[in-house]
Amino acid sequence: MTRKLRWGLVGGGVDAFIGAVHRHAAALDGQYDLVAGALSSTPERSQISGQVLGLPEDRVYNSWEQMLERERMRPDPVEVVSIVTPNHMHFPVALAAVQAGFHVICDKPLVHTSEQARALEAAVRESGTLFAVTYNYSGYPLIRQAREMVLAGAIGEVRKVQVEYHQGWLAREDQGKQAAWRTDPALSGPAGALGDIGTHAEQLLSYVTGQDITSLSAELTSFVPGRAVDDDANVRLRLSGGARGLLTCSQVEIGRENDLRLSVFGTLGSLGWCQEDPNVLIFDRLDQPRQILTRGGPGLGQSAQAATRLPAGHPEAFVEAFGNIYRDFAAHVRAQIAGKAHSPAYPTIADGVRGVEFVEAAIESASSGSWVNLPR
Amino acid sequence: MTRKLRWGLVGGGVDAFIGAVHRHAAALDGQYDLVAGALSSTPERSQISGQVLGLPEDRVYNSWEQMLERERMRPDPVEVVSIVTPNHMHFPVALAAVQAGFHVICDKPLVHTSEQARALEAAVRESGTLFAVTYNYSGYPLIRQAREMVLAGAIGEVRKVQVEYHQGWLAREDQGKQAAWRTDPALSGPAGALGDIGTHAEQLLSYVTGQDITSLSAELTSFVPGRAVDDDANVRLRLSGGARGLLTCSQVEIGRENDLRLSVFGTLGSLGWCQEDPNVLIFDRLDQPRQILTRGGPGLGQSAQAATRLPAGHPEAFVEAFGNIYRDFAAHVRAQIAGKAHSPAYPTIADGVRGVEFVEAAIESASSGSWVNLPR
Amino acid sequence: MTRKLRWGLVGGGVDAFIGAVHRHAAALDGQYDLVAGALSSTPERSQISGQVLGLPEDRVYNSWEQMLERERMRPDPVEVVSIVTPNHMHFPVALAAVQAGFHVICDKPLVHTSEQARALEAAVRESGTLFAVTYNYSGYPLIRQAREMVLAGAIGEVRKVQVEYHQGWLAREDQGKQAAWRTDPALSGPAGALGDIGTHAEQLLSYVTGQDITSLSAELTSFVPGRAVDDDANVRLRLSGGARGLLTCSQVEIGRENDLRLSVFGTLGSLGWCQEDPNVLIFDRLDQPRQILTRGGPGLGQSAQAATRLPAGHPEAFVEAFGNIYRDFAAHVRAQIAGKAHSPAYPTIADGVRGVEFVEAAIESASSGSWVNLPR
Amino acid sequence: MTRKLRWGLVGGGVDAFIGAVHRHAAALDGQYDLVAGALSSTPERSQISGQVLGLPEDRVYNSWEQMLERERMRPDPVEVVSIVTPNHMHFPVALAAVQAGFHVICDKPLVHTSEQARALEAAVRESGTLFAVTYNYSGYPLIRQAREMVLAGAIGEVRKVQVEYHQGWLAREDQGKQAAWRTDPALSGPAGALGDIGTHAEQLLSYVTGQDITSLSAELTSFVPGRAVDDDANVRLRLSGGARGLLTCSQVEIGRENDLRLSVFGTLGSLGWCQEDPNVLIFDRLDQPRQILTRGGPGLGQSAQAATRLPAGHPEAFVEAFGNIYRDFAAHVRAQIAGKAHSPAYPTIADGVRGVEFVEAAIESASSGSWVNLPR
Repeated sequence: MTRKLRWGLVGGGVDAFIGAVHRHAAALDGQYDLVAGALSSTPERSQISGQVLGLPEDRVYNSWEQMLERERMRPDPVEVVSIVTPNHMHFPVALAAVQAGFHVICDKPLVHTSEQARALEAAVRESGTLFAVTYNYSGYPLIRQAREMVLAGAIGEVRKVQVEYHQGWLAREDQGKQAAWRTDPALSGPAGALGDIGTHAEQLLSYVTGQDITSLSAELTSFVPGRAVDDDANVRLRLSGGARGLLTCSQVEIGRENDLRLSVFGTLGSLGWCQEDPNVLIFDRLDQPRQILTRGGPGLGQSAQAATRLPAGHPEAFVEAFGNIYRDFAAHVRAQIAGKAHSPAYPTIADGVRGVEFVEAAIESASSGSWVNLPR
Repeated sequence: MTRKLRWGLVGGGVDAFIGAVHRHAAALDGQYDLVAGALSSTPERSQISGQVLGLPEDRVYNSWEQMLERERMRPDPVEVVSIVTPNHMHFPVALAAVQAGFHVICDKPLVHTSEQARALEAAVRESGTLFAVTYNYSGYPLIRQAREMVLAGAIGEVRKVQVEYHQGWLAREDQGKQAAWRTDPALSGPAGALGDIGTHAEQLLSYVTGQDITSLSAELTSFVPGRAVDDDANVRLRLSGGARGLLTCSQVEIGRENDLRLSVFGTLGSLGWCQEDPNVLIFDRLDQPRQILTRGGPGLGQSAQAATRLPAGHPEAFVEAFGNIYRDFAAHVRAQIAGKAHSPAYPTIADGVRGVEFVEAAIESASSGSWVNLPR
Repeated sequence: MTRKLRWGLVGGGVDAFIGAVHRHAAALDGQYDLVAGALSSTPERSQISGQVLGLPEDRVYNSWEQMLERERMRPDPVEVVSIVTPNHMHFPVALAAVQAGFHVICDKPLVHTSEQARALEAAVRESGTLFAVTYNYSGYPLIRQAREMVLAGAIGEVRKVQVEYHQGWLAREDQGKQAAWRTDPALSGPAGALGDIGTHAEQLLSYVTGQDITSLSAELTSFVPGRAVDDDANVRLRLSGGARGLLTCSQVEIGRENDLRLSVFGTLGSLGWCQEDPNVLIFDRLDQPRQILTRGGPGLGQSAQAATRLPAGHPEAFVEAFGNIYRDFAAHVRAQIAGKAHSPAYPTIADGVRGVEFVEAAIESASSGSWVNLPR
Repeated sequence: MTRKLRWGLVGGGVDAFIGAVHRHAAALDGQYDLVAGALSSTPERSQISGQVLGLPEDRVYNSWEQMLERERMRPDPVEVVSIVTPNHMHFPVALAAVQAGFHVICDKPLVHTSEQARALEAAVRESGTLFAVTYNYSGYPLIRQAREMVLAGAIGEVRKVQVEYHQGWLAREDQGKQAAWRTDPALSGPAGALGDIGTHAEQLLSYVTGQDITSLSAELTSFVPGRAVDDDANVRLRLSGGARGLLTCSQVEIGRENDLRLSVFGTLGSLGWCQEDPNVLIFDRLDQPRQILTRGGPGLGQSAQAATRLPAGHPEAFVEAFGNIYRDFAAHVRAQIAGKAHSPAYPTIADGVRGVEFVEAAIESASSGSWVNLPR
């Protein structure tokens, strides 16, 4: 190991849930040194957060514009900028950061429209910077194991994927800050649950199957009276490799915490995984007893082992999976600094673009009642 | 208790899975005496089965027509006829039995077409006989508890129901007798998985919510090459009380045995239940810790207690639930004999008719790509 | 199949939990015809129960002595007598029934003292009648699978067995009829939890490992103030094949229903099973992913298949396991009638005797604080 | 927040499992800055590890003696020293570190003998330094919840505690570095499984119940041929508040990963928790349905909330629990620096001493076959 990467945050002040997650995830492996931040849209809050986080006084900025501008001028600028703001700020901040030459780690959904997404993708291509989207669930070791197994043919040809994302915390009229911006289309974008958690589900199924969504039929519902965005979605899918899929997500299912679950069914077997019990992967094969693969246990492949920190039975969970995205990104940044080729193990701008296209297609389908093709 | 009811079987010879289930279920409470049978479409098999089952020689019949005719003439005829044949025989046998004045217990799906269903329903009305359809999953004590709670408002207004029925035993080209007739439209009817297990799911959600399906949008798939009926279905629902629903079923999901699960989400709480773990009902309420209700345990209502035979922790399962349908039916038959009014606790011909209408609507929707309304 | 076996009950009136269990278990396979009973120690109750159960009036007896005497005189006497009374009646009734030449099915614990146990064993030997003890948990298909696997060496040499039996229904001062006799030494015998459920645990571990207990060190506790018998036991074991064991049981663990669980650890693997989830057997092997064996599923041996009635995923439970004891006993009775050799698959008088010896040794050890050897 | 605490490691080179755990745990909250280390007993390895970890070259030491000596002389010495060596080094390093005035975080079991333990405790008292023992399982939020509930009387008076710690990774002759030192009494101390995991179990039960062990009766076994220390233990307990207990641990149970589980039974209710499913606490009360408390969910008290980083359903696990010990210790160090009183939330030297006394008493009891009292 050499020095830590210099890292800055846009958003993620001390009272922000997701900001703390990014800090814990980045801290885990000691690859990042948090040295700068525009931690809130309110300058005073940014300053307070900067103090609490122990940032150097002169690198706590009052706005993201100021941060990007001043950091560029420094001899030791931040190398990686993480964007952990409400959704509507992703596009302007990410675009500016990329154009300023910073590597970017951005929350999902990437941006509000596919037009923005393509513009940002073009900017990334042009600048040559690296760009990760924190589809963190693809950082779980057993999700990587599932992908490795599916691609190696362990369950035969994939016939069907079912991905479900159940939450209940928005089951009533909105309350609290986290709820407020997520149900305001100006801040969250055109989708509610679909964008907030449906995109996780979409990326997870594509990641594990190696197949993209080619067309879909969606039903979107706003169960809570007065809500301006969907809080429940139900999407039928066709995938690029010929499989069919079912994606459901909801934020009004009382009692469900963060219940993301994936089942992949093939001609020879199937795999099952649940985010709330992430150290277990269920593996079924025709005419054979069920196998339970455990993180750190026997029978795992290279990708799961590389994403594992602790021995079997010493449970890893959300923060390690999120940390794997950060660690993978650091590896790519270091490879680029060293001028070495590197294949990204983390979700890239391309995954982010597909997520936005997925949301747009689903909204169009729900509105028209017809199947809608995705671009490409 | 008085005497046992005289009971006859059409179908259900000794090598038939479902015949044994009916016999175990009927035996459990000692309410039925099996005295006659036309146990197979092949006379020799009927005779052998009759011997094995210890039936009187003169009441083992070579055909169901013979059985109905001769039993009518006896001074001590069977009072209840159970029909446990492949689906295509349900209609002729049931119609004749009803017209001959026998009470009938019939397997699901009731018949092949809604025309047949309505004809049969009319015959039942006319004859005044009793008619049960073995939607056996509604016999589980905790399903009855769930219904009682939903109707009492324990979870508020129902917003959404998700019912899933996962099986994997038809994941490859058909093999074996059970598979053969289920995938031959001449015998199984126009639907495959949708009829065989989707109708269970449909009845379960209506039973628990007290709401019927009013319209639906279905996607049906035949994943196994060459299969003439669907083996996977995915149906969006609108219910009569305003709720929305999602019903999925499949018989190609390798590793899934008989994984029927139901979730009901309301404005104040939710309920969850799985057939493979049937002694547990999950009860969630806004801002409260999850409660686990167990069969025989504290906190249950009248309907669950009435359907329970063993103390908590001494698991009951499939046969007791099935037996509850038989026990409930016997109670109605005895009430009718005694000239007493009785409200049926078992699924009736009306449930059977709705199942057939559901199947027809789903097939029409899958074909047209549009939402389809159900009758009434 | 030929005729049903003629069957009589001592105890087990309509308000008795365990009587209903025996009736359901016997009914399941249609092997028994309940024709006589001395159903309660109170003649009026016996008569009422006889009516409810539909027994012929002249075969509802006012006492077990009367029943044995009169049935002996009939041309069509009962062939099998089940004894489902409180424990203190097991010895006199069983001894008299055996001496009168009836086959007997008796509840556990067999009798109060090892002296009684040996006297009864001698009487059985002398009379040549068959005798089952309803250690019903050994009737579960996956327990039979576990035994078959252990004896076949699937987990190598057994090192250690842990068997636990957790209940909570006696956590406070006694209430109700079931509790009353179980905590009165005159009726229950010298042991409380140890006799009521500890003997199940003892038999289960011996059955699955094929090893008897040779010595033990016990700690017995009465947690509930004023209770005259133990309500919690903790026993260290040495087994005849060299393994060590730990047996714990309790009836004061609030929240535990009927949580009997068994783990067997060998040099090459291990097996785990829980009574409340009885359709699953966990199989672990050195350096291999865990396997989940399911009743009716792939990978099972002959003994599990023979004890199974329903396909995988259609859960069987307590009543089927209990019914397997009854079915196995019927097979033996029929074999004896036919003059054929037969190896009993059910727990015999020898198991019953060992249970009593286990209880006596545990009480002696708890009193002396020392290890105690069991006879033989 | 002010500056990070200056932190040094003794042991914990890059190939050491537990070293990585300490680094991740310390990193999580950004409270520590790793600035020095004697990372291996082999100087070359220490140097390589220091490089990989990015330590300043002049603060990578060839021995712990060198580290303590030189750091003392610096103007910016380490403030906290973590000792993550094999057990036999805990005593000399901890004693020297304490005497040199460093705060210490030490792995368990604390030392080999109670004599050493008391000497170390005296040294801590004399020096006024702070001392934590990484009984990390007491850092789990729901364990803190359980303690808070038990102490508040939520389950009434505690009657019985059962704590089990099941592992299987030492089921055969030793292999690998982790196994080698753990089964060599010169390095691990007089106990094997009892010291390595039994002490965790002992501390957990005392922590949750608020009761210390007063006497015990132990059975220790070495199942693997030739093993010089126990690999399985079974201990009966009496606790200071009058409760009884059962503690079992094993490292030869094939298939068990790190299966630590705790059940506490009181006169009014009970609590249950498993380390491999740590976000769930089971709460049972007399005559009430079971409640499932979840980390981050409704119904939790202050101590659990303070130990929680992520919302419900975003699972936390091993590293966060371990991190809580580090975070709690940092809070105490900062309070001491600030001259403020502070009540330690982490396990202290006193817990460490009790663990050693527990081990000694268990070994004496296993040898004598008698109950043994613990000091105090």
